[in-house]
Amino acid sequence: MSTTVSPLAPKSYPDMPEIDGVQFATAEAGIKYEGRTDVLLVTVSEETTVAGVFTKSKCSSAPVDWCKDKLPGGKARALLVNSGNANAFTGKKGRASVELSADIVANSLGCAKDEIYLASTGVIGEPLPAEKFSRVIEELKNAQDGANWLDAAKAIMTTDTYPKVATSTVELDGETVTINGIAKGAGMIAPDMATMLSFVFTDAAIAPDVLQDLLSGETGGSFNAVTVDSDTSTSDTVLFFATGSAAAKGVAPVTSLDDPRVSVLRAALGDVMLDLAHQIVRDGEGARKFVEVRVEGAESNSSAKTIALSIANSPLVKTAVAGEDANWGRVVMAVGKAGEPADRDRLAIWFGDIRVAVEGERDPDYSEEAASAVMQQEDIFLRVDLGLGDGVATVWTCDLTKEYVAINGDYRS
Amino acid sequence: MSTTVSPLAPKSYPDMPEIDGVQFATAEAGIKYEGRTDVLLVTVSEETTVAGVFTKSKCSSAPVDWCKDKLPGGKARALLVNSGNANAFTGKKGRASVELSADIVANSLGCAKDEIYLASTGVIGEPLPAEKFSRVIEELKNAQDGANWLDAAKAIMTTDTYPKVATSTVELDGETVTINGIAKGAGMIAPDMATMLSFVFTDAAIAPDVLQDLLSGETGGSFNAVTVDSDTSTSDTVLFFATGSAAAKGVAPVTSLDDPRVSVLRAALGDVMLDLAHQIVRDGEGARKFVEVRVEGAESNSSAKTIALSIANSPLVKTAVAGEDANWGRVVMAVGKAGEPADRDRLAIWFGDIRVAVEGERDPDYSEEAASAVMQQEDIFLRVDLGLGDGVATVWTCDLTKEYVAINGDYRS
Repeated sequence: MSTTVSPLAPKSYPDMPEIDGVQFATAEAGIKYEGRTDVLLVTVSEETTVAGVFTKSKCSSAPVDWCKDKLPGGKARALLVNSGNANAFTGKKGRASVELSADIVANSLGCAKDEIYLASTGVIGEPLPAEKFSRVIEELKNAQDGANWLDAAKAIMTTDTYPKVATSTVELDGETVTINGIAKGAGMIAPDMATMLSFVFTDAAIAPDVLQDLLSGETGGSFNAVTVDSDTSTSDTVLFFATGSAAAKGVAPVTSLDDPRVSVLRAALGDVMLDLAHQIVRDGEGARKFVEVRVEGAESNSSAKTIALSIANSPLVKTAVAGEDANWGRVVMAVGKAGEPADRDRLAIWFGDIRVAVEGERDPDYSEEAASAVMQQEDIFLRVDLGLGDGVATVWTCDLTKEYVAINGDYRS
Repeated sequence: MSTTVSPLAPKSYPDMPEIDGVQFATAEAGIKYEGRTDVLLVTVSEETTVAGVFTKSKCSSAPVDWCKDKLPGGKARALLVNSGNANAFTGKKGRASVELSADIVANSLGCAKDEIYLASTGVIGEPLPAEKFSRVIEELKNAQDGANWLDAAKAIMTTDTYPKVATSTVELDGETVTINGIAKGAGMIAPDMATMLSFVFTDAAIAPDVLQDLLSGETGGSFNAVTVDSDTSTSDTVLFFATGSAAAKGVAPVTSLDDPRVSVLRAALGDVMLDLAHQIVRDGEGARKFVEVRVEGAESNSSAKTIALSIANSPLVKTAVAGEDANWGRVVMAVGKAGEPADRDRLAIWFGDIRVAVEGERDPDYSEEAASAVMQQEDIFLRVDLGLGDGVATVWTCDLTKEYVAINGDYRS
């Protein structure tokens, strides 16, 4: 476990407003960690709708399978999240664990088992001792409160060095509607899904199909546009809950994608998700640099994204960033290996504002000093223009440091 | 530059027999390094045929473009290799550099420019000062000799910590025919091509099309089945030269793939290439462990190879190996993210002889102690059975250590 907070951590946290219909509490269930909270119970009001996006891993965890199975119902009453154990690759025991977890919550709250959502993060392959939840469920139920979002974000951390929260408000029908999100990340972070866990809540009333469209639509440019180490978790889960409590204030339910308010919600949701996604990268295991990679002039947007990810996932690019080395030759290498259309002799590369390469060779005005100055900054902007078409994409990553190796060479012990 | 030799280096080198028709010499051209050889000139006899396999990078280097352009001629008289500068992404200057290099060699040797092969390895994006070759060409020409293969291998090293040579002999028509190879690798090593540079020589007389078939056929299971860091170089080059000198001893030329001697040559060539490929992995930057990953029971061989490479390239698997952590959950993750058919509940995983997981969960007889003992060995064998079909593949990699980050965070300075 890391003990020092990432130098890229936010300098301050936003004021997180309460959301009508969302309450939560955390507890120490002792799943794996000692002396810290490791379980979060969120309860949501009766009319709450839910949408989800999950890992594309062929070896998804038992809680992911559970959530996917319940999602068509579109309704939720509670979310139980634990850290320290992913309940992944746990076979029949894993399936029994999620059943037991949902039973414990449903019995305590007196709601339908099918409206309980579950997420677990931590070690893979260890059976999850779900019976431990029964020891803390009454404590969790009795402590339900809507105020302390940071505490909620802390309980779901694994190797994260800081909790991740984000918020946005919009005006709908003259009333303020809020979107709050929490997330955890740190390692095993790559697109489809990028984050390991993120939970987003709003008091707007939004029909399940609209909610799913909003969530899916904003995932590509946020959680699926960040990478720490190119490894994709078995547990990646994003859930979006809409309590509908704002209806009591006169905010009419959003029931169709044609509703003009959808674009307002979409923008605010995108802000929250991108903020959380960036926070995950800034807390990448061992990260000392935050890197934005923008690829322009590709044959298509998807080609641009493949190339951007090839750059962002390259160990040689990431170690060069760690070493503050303006080694743009490695960017050329990463473009070349992506397998997408590229013409070496049209390529131009910028580090920050400094154009380092143009028309297939080093920029005639190249200054090692100027390029190195860019690399010494905490936030690095890499831009590549392929000169072929209109395709663009932006992804975010961090550097690859000795600390990443240290953290991951000794994670289980 | 590394100063300590990899702990995985061969304990001894084979006796490398001379090959009739192959002579070489090395010199200090001062391209980048001080106080060591950095240029190798190999001359081959007049009837020599040549085959080649090159990087699939869209940003291939000027020497790669040169070799690809000359290869259809099928004939060679000399090979000039330098280390310290890759002459990659050097635009017009790079093209002028290869022309000048070939001119210098052709003028000195009095042979056709089109029969000169060139390879460069080292930093990308720096113009290659080819005029420096003219200062050493007479020295190189006058020192031509067929004996010291280790010296040849040393001159082409960059961050390699030891030279790489391999040899094999076969009986053809009652006479001994030899295949010798040298290689360099270390970083930016991933399939298509895996090695950065390798040059293989034989005294057999082999027609160019047969030679190309042999070389291409043996690449998939050797150089394209190893990975250090998933990064593919702009300069990867394998050339195979057949001098034909054995014809004087009565070994008839091999002119058709139907010749029964082809399979004998294929096996020996495969041995040499696999030996060199393994040596490259064992000298992976910062490597402390050699890892064989075998995937069985996949739907096809190519599916097995994709999954094997997903495991071998996973930073989390590689750091776990570095930490001697039997973290088979990360192997599950890497299988899951490969995007190939897999059924979590049929998966079985072995570390060495220890089955750690079966039927989608931890093996009932799992012993952390036994699995950890395997991880403490220098050579680690990871095996995955998908339980779906007959597809198999084996790839080789090394661990990801802090030393990799240190070497690559400070490579150019």
